[in-house]
Amino acid sequence: MKYFTQFESKALADQLIEKALFYKANPRIDQEKGAGKRIGCIFLNPSLRTRASTQIAALNLGMEPIVMNMDKEGWALEMKEGVVMNKGTVEHIKDAAAVLGSYFDILAIRAFPSLTNKQEDIEDFIFNQFIKYSGAPVISLESAIRHPLQSLADMVTIREQSGDAKKVKVVLTWAPHIKAIPHAVANSFSEWAIGCGHDLTITHPEGYQLDPIFTNGANIELDQQKALEDADFVYVKNWSAFNDYGKIVTTDNSWMLTEKHFRHAKKAKVMHCLPVRRNLELSDEILDGKRSIVQEQANNRIYAAQSVISHILG
Amino acid sequence: MKYFTQFESKALADQLIEKALFYKANPRIDQEKGAGKRIGCIFLNPSLRTRASTQIAALNLGMEPIVMNMDKEGWALEMKEGVVMNKGTVEHIKDAAAVLGSYFDILAIRAFPSLTNKQEDIEDFIFNQFIKYSGAPVISLESAIRHPLQSLADMVTIREQSGDAKKVKVVLTWAPHIKAIPHAVANSFSEWAIGCGHDLTITHPEGYQLDPIFTNGANIELDQQKALEDADFVYVKNWSAFNDYGKIVTTDNSWMLTEKHFRHAKKAKVMHCLPVRRNLELSDEILDGKRSIVQEQANNRIYAAQSVISHILG
Amino acid sequence: MKYFTQFESKALADQLIEKALFYKANPRIDQEKGAGKRIGCIFLNPSLRTRASTQIAALNLGMEPIVMNMDKEGWALEMKEGVVMNKGTVEHIKDAAAVLGSYFDILAIRAFPSLTNKQEDIEDFIFNQFIKYSGAPVISLESAIRHPLQSLADMVTIREQSGDAKKVKVVLTWAPHIKAIPHAVANSFSEWAIGCGHDLTITHPEGYQLDPIFTNGANIELDQQKALEDADFVYVKNWSAFNDYGKIVTTDNSWMLTEKHFRHAKKAKVMHCLPVRRNLELSDEILDGKRSIVQEQANNRIYAAQSVISHILG
Repeated sequence: MKYFTQFESKALADQLIEKALFYKANPRIDQEKGAGKRIGCIFLNPSLRTRASTQIAALNLGMEPIVMNMDKEGWALEMKEGVVMNKGTVEHIKDAAAVLGSYFDILAIRAFPSLTNKQEDIEDFIFNQFIKYSGAPVISLESAIRHPLQSLADMVTIREQSGDAKKVKVVLTWAPHIKAIPHAVANSFSEWAIGCGHDLTITHPEGYQLDPIFTNGANIELDQQKALEDADFVYVKNWSAFNDYGKIVTTDNSWMLTEKHFRHAKKAKVMHCLPVRRNLELSDEILDGKRSIVQEQANNRIYAAQSVISHILG
Repeated sequence: MKYFTQFESKALADQLIEKALFYKANPRIDQEKGAGKRIGCIFLNPSLRTRASTQIAALNLGMEPIVMNMDKEGWALEMKEGVVMNKGTVEHIKDAAAVLGSYFDILAIRAFPSLTNKQEDIEDFIFNQFIKYSGAPVISLESAIRHPLQSLADMVTIREQSGDAKKVKVVLTWAPHIKAIPHAVANSFSEWAIGCGHDLTITHPEGYQLDPIFTNGANIELDQQKALEDADFVYVKNWSAFNDYGKIVTTDNSWMLTEKHFRHAKKAKVMHCLPVRRNLELSDEILDGKRSIVQEQANNRIYAAQSVISHILG
Repeated sequence: MKYFTQFESKALADQLIEKALFYKANPRIDQEKGAGKRIGCIFLNPSLRTRASTQIAALNLGMEPIVMNMDKEGWALEMKEGVVMNKGTVEHIKDAAAVLGSYFDILAIRAFPSLTNKQEDIEDFIFNQFIKYSGAPVISLESAIRHPLQSLADMVTIREQSGDAKKVKVVLTWAPHIKAIPHAVANSFSEWAIGCGHDLTITHPEGYQLDPIFTNGANIELDQQKALEDADFVYVKNWSAFNDYGKIVTTDNSWMLTEKHFRHAKKAKVMHCLPVRRNLELSDEILDGKRSIVQEQANNRIYAAQSVISHILG
């Protein structure tokens, strides 16, 4: 595996999940595997969990992580081919990515969408420019359209909570937000939940349909109450409109989950990738209650990353 | 010891001072102690010495330090309970602290006061929210009201300079400044100097009384010249008013120490935690002269931190 | 060697070039040399390659690198002696440099010129204040007037490409830019190319004469075509005027190299220190073609830094 950017196959996903759980039990067992190797973590956007968990995963494998916050410590990169660079961009992605690719054994990159240029975003243009020019193995730390390390951690968490055998009902529900939020987490969660063989229902207000490329195989149910019935896991996430790209169609706060939403899903566990805006996306009642497994998800980010890095190291 | 946030007892202080001096002579002797362990250094405010000395202390013990500048690399944290997060804050301290607590063996946190909300500041609200929700051992890298690693380094420096036996006269003198400065260093220095059994005199212009919680046991003498008489150590520090909270009552530059202030304290050594504004807080004459031990203090920050981390590791 | 700030002698340069090439073939061979030692990388200005390559070089030698972005994570430093610090600067270079010098075995420092105060810049005032007060060995990561690690990497690259024996013709050509750019790379390249015994020609539009201190021994030829004839290596770089200090005299884009400029220098290789503004400083045609060795230069930054650090460790 040279690139970890999206769901590939159930076989690979199962292997990565197993390995993540193994590392959770034995975090330092492969200290020799990464010895003398370096991972460069390149952030074009801010990060807390992703940055820390990736650094820790690398250190657990004996690697040397180096973090570059390009948005703060570096300078603006030019992404377009052939332009005369006489404006604000200081270096072309071609040159920067190639240098970084030659400096590191693995590159891990975060590049958010613009939410204004739909075509560029759905092509994952910036992220793919990095891949194209770096020459190195690349791990996505969230691109314009996917957040596969988050989804792998989510699958690890579902496996942990439900055991191997059981087929579970998973619901991805839209939640209100005051800002236009990317689709990456929702897209990836859908892609991975379906790919891993879970029974996925997606629910959202009219106007919030996700790109069908990622939801093919899911049950789309616009009635949130109906969608939630008998759910084992409810994944809460805001996203902006995909069709009317990047727009906020509604902020209807009846979509925010409280305990009364779970009348017909008594045992459902609640998931969120964090950061979560409390009492806007998700109520204190749920987050501070027994249903919430958001901290377990966050903790599993370390072992998901460790599993992927280990797999790339070979 | 799970938390290092304030002076606890003379016995513990003596133990930490001894250990710091031992590490100063043998910095790498406990490389195995922290092997495979991680410290997360979380800065809500800028830092130079504290950041570098804590990283170095951790590395000396074989630990992996990871620094997170939340003010630059992260996002705004919500500190209040129960609010609807539909404004500028992106993540609640509850969630962020819990994640960080699960990622690290020790957390070290810097959180300055607002100097506008006195009640919140004296409760050390932000800092205590971190402690409450992180679940992990916590070291203060300066909170709203205390800077115990600085004070420990100061006690180490006094011990080094004066030897074990002697009871010394220590004077904490207010110095002028153009900005409203927190009370943390002054509070902690007073708390530790008294706790360690030194003879402490505090001097400042009318209106700059510190919170008596920290100064109980000190001699308060508003005449600076009288206070300085026969001093062995003079600790120079600005702070803003505590009663008229966060205000600058005077910037009277006669309070800035020069050589002539030491007519009746010929042998006095001068201390400052740095950064120091030269010729405003303290004159070049003193800082560049033989009385100054500010560099020794700064250097001892490494070994104070190392002593504390080692003690928490157990 | 305590300071690496400029070209010293052909003998030393040859030794550093040999060692860099040796480390390129054996990057981890001296892991024990730096064990238990620390390098502090202090950036007063942004960096990508320099920061990453220096960290990697240090790690290759078993050292612990700690990066401080003073411009982002720290605070404004006062550089002038004797001033009353009642304005924006928070700490004097005297105090900050001395602390950092006591914390690290080696300091590496980046300090760009103002391009407005010629006298201060040509004295390399800020950089020399660091050296003066830190007390530690210092490596320049680019000062106001020199960028010796870049030049060493350039010399390594020329050696790699041309072999030991051959005397090569090297041309340093000015290129257009829209911003006022420092002279450091051009100055250092000239100093090192001449010092290493290469046949150096410098070409630029009228008004862009460099400080003759650095170009003594070079052939100055204002006709670019003539300068390029039979070149083996063409180093492309913009700089602002030195005489009319910091000014942009022309942005004449006929100076930007394209394939047709190489009619009489068929075999010439093209060099640039990066970041490069494509199609402003240098055409895509050249950068993406076979003449370009800019990526080789960037890669050699690691081994140039490693050679220098190793030499200072002794």
